[in-house]
Amino acid sequence: MTNPHPISFPLKIAGLKLGSTGAGIKRADRDDLLLIELDPGSTCAAVFTRNAFCAAPVTVSRSHLGHGPRWLLINAGNANAGTGQRGLEDALQTCALVAGLRGGRPEQVLPFSTGVIGEYLPIDKIASALPNAMAALTEEGWERASRAIMTTDTVPKLVHREIILEGRKVALVGIAKGAGMIHPDMATLLSFIGTNAKLEAPLLQELLAAAAGQSFNCITVDGDTSTNDSLVLMATGSSGVAVKRDDPNLPVFAQALQAVCDDLAEAIVRDGEGATKLMRIVVEQARNEAEAHQVANTIALSPLVKTAFFASDPNWGRILAAVGRSGCPDLDIAKVAIWLGDVCIVENGGRALSYTEEAGQKVMSQTDITVRITLGRGDASQRVLTCDFSYDYVKINAEYRT
Amino acid sequence: MTNPHPISFPLKIAGLKLGSTGAGIKRADRDDLLLIELDPGSTCAAVFTRNAFCAAPVTVSRSHLGHGPRWLLINAGNANAGTGQRGLEDALQTCALVAGLRGGRPEQVLPFSTGVIGEYLPIDKIASALPNAMAALTEEGWERASRAIMTTDTVPKLVHREIILEGRKVALVGIAKGAGMIHPDMATLLSFIGTNAKLEAPLLQELLAAAAGQSFNCITVDGDTSTNDSLVLMATGSSGVAVKRDDPNLPVFAQALQAVCDDLAEAIVRDGEGATKLMRIVVEQARNEAEAHQVANTIALSPLVKTAFFASDPNWGRILAAVGRSGCPDLDIAKVAIWLGDVCIVENGGRALSYTEEAGQKVMSQTDITVRITLGRGDASQRVLTCDFSYDYVKINAEYRT
Repeated sequence: MTNPHPISFPLKIAGLKLGSTGAGIKRADRDDLLLIELDPGSTCAAVFTRNAFCAAPVTVSRSHLGHGPRWLLINAGNANAGTGQRGLEDALQTCALVAGLRGGRPEQVLPFSTGVIGEYLPIDKIASALPNAMAALTEEGWERASRAIMTTDTVPKLVHREIILEGRKVALVGIAKGAGMIHPDMATLLSFIGTNAKLEAPLLQELLAAAAGQSFNCITVDGDTSTNDSLVLMATGSSGVAVKRDDPNLPVFAQALQAVCDDLAEAIVRDGEGATKLMRIVVEQARNEAEAHQVANTIALSPLVKTAFFASDPNWGRILAAVGRSGCPDLDIAKVAIWLGDVCIVENGGRALSYTEEAGQKVMSQTDITVRITLGRGDASQRVLTCDFSYDYVKINAEYRT
Repeated sequence: MTNPHPISFPLKIAGLKLGSTGAGIKRADRDDLLLIELDPGSTCAAVFTRNAFCAAPVTVSRSHLGHGPRWLLINAGNANAGTGQRGLEDALQTCALVAGLRGGRPEQVLPFSTGVIGEYLPIDKIASALPNAMAALTEEGWERASRAIMTTDTVPKLVHREIILEGRKVALVGIAKGAGMIHPDMATLLSFIGTNAKLEAPLLQELLAAAAGQSFNCITVDGDTSTNDSLVLMATGSSGVAVKRDDPNLPVFAQALQAVCDDLAEAIVRDGEGATKLMRIVVEQARNEAEAHQVANTIALSPLVKTAFFASDPNWGRILAAVGRSGCPDLDIAKVAIWLGDVCIVENGGRALSYTEEAGQKVMSQTDITVRITLGRGDASQRVLTCDFSYDYVKINAEYRT
């Protein structure tokens, strides 16, 4: 993807190495195992899925996060979710394998998995492939890593930003995988971001949670919150630049982090399963942000709205119906207005007098479409990104395990 | 559809006539206008959508319901929703037309519309066709009426029951249309039920609301609550049998009414847009009925679950993930069990030891499938009916207005 903020290539964060290899978990002909190694002194923050049936690696990573993580082990092709006690033991065993080979403690390893739910992790395949992942460790491994973690993704997601703090280059590089089961709940899918800034873990966690709240938590492909969502931010400090509370560096760094999260989140929606269009659902004049989010989500999740966008059909009645059922208490529909791009389609509770089918059709034919709803009952707003619903969505998910 | 409780054919309710005709609203080659006429002394009950953007005819019918309805005018092909003030005036004008032709007052007419949202009602076409609908009025018009109200339905929905009360035959006949935008919220889609029992309006309303709560309100096709949902129960009293409170007739009649509503609701899901399978999602051992309903709905609405069923793929991880994200507070996953038909797939928070892919596959290959979830935290339960998600769902909704 294009990026208006290029940094030196090849992309790297000094003090953070990535090693990808094929373990034959997903398919024989591609990488599906990624090992990340952090230099001593690095800090880590992470947010995880709130799905009650969270995967075994999420449970393990959550408990290991406070022990000064040095390694992340990520596999595609198997989610190690719904696997009960044996799943937990398997995840812990992969930590022990990494620690044994690299001379650390198992608690310093964070495991991550993505893929089919309900099958046991092929520990033997992972054990056999780990030496290859170790041999591949390099600071220049970001691009290859972005491919190793893909599942139904059609393109890798790799994003970077460079800022100058104290006259020195501070970089952020992030990768993510997405495509299906995308409806992050106070967390996200699988995404890993590195920076060479130096931050204490509590501040790092705070910044990550804030950035995720406005990016990954505002996207949806299919409404299904995954069992494995995990977002990790790793700071090596190798730039020598510290970012602290009440520090002029902080807002600059936070803004760059938000930009990286925004770009990754948008890339995930753009590559949503079967997606042909990106829709930005903007709800304004709500009583509070939660209400705005709820209305935007109702529209973003409606299969009827999503199939109309796929067909480039300005069937705006479906948007109106979604607003109407979104559960806003005492909604006065006479105050509601709806825009497709710059075209006002609904005002005063009904079809806008100025609306023409031609004008609506022109907007719907685009591949990036903004739907804006003003509720006329407050000043809170929220934006949710989503994609359309196509034949290929059904195809991809009907044939996922075959 | 088959019915284990046949009544005399042709189906009729003395005192209730139905007249269908083609008005050219939807297509030139089919009926799309239905007039129902009730004898004086009949009573009516109705429940309507809770969508804030309710259609103009819903607003009008709601306000006319207390004025002793004698006529119902139903059109397919145009929802008269999202049409603002003009839509209300149009709906009122159709009431005036019927009243003028039949010698009644406009408040005695209930209007109903279904079809595309956001286009003005073609009043001229309706005015031209009304005399034909009048000429067609007959007590034997149920079957033709069931076809006149269809939109994307592939089969008409016509259901009947006969019970013997006080030695006399009491009949219930009902029709419904459905297929898309089906997620009734304390109301339903378009459905009209007649009976020759005699009931006071308040009791009729009470019985209808109770029956709808356990039937129409427990189905979903796509999660989209329509702007036009309306369910009407009409009692002519022509059997001479009265059903009253604290009357032995009441439970027998209520049970028959529930059966009619259940059958119609099931028929709607079975004919859901693109549906190839019927799924019964049964949630048991919940803390309360609302919680059970919420878990069942989360599964029933998941596009990932629905596409897996379409593919006959026992990808039960998607069911588990949906339970996990359904928002049950403090859910103890170790107490959750999930069955596909008679096959236990999840127990103790993970894959059941006895589960085999073959056993799961065998259930998934059926066209009527029960998914049962026990939450292990109470004794409330709820059942939701839904259907799978196929290529044809996308096709039907992408091409709806073309």
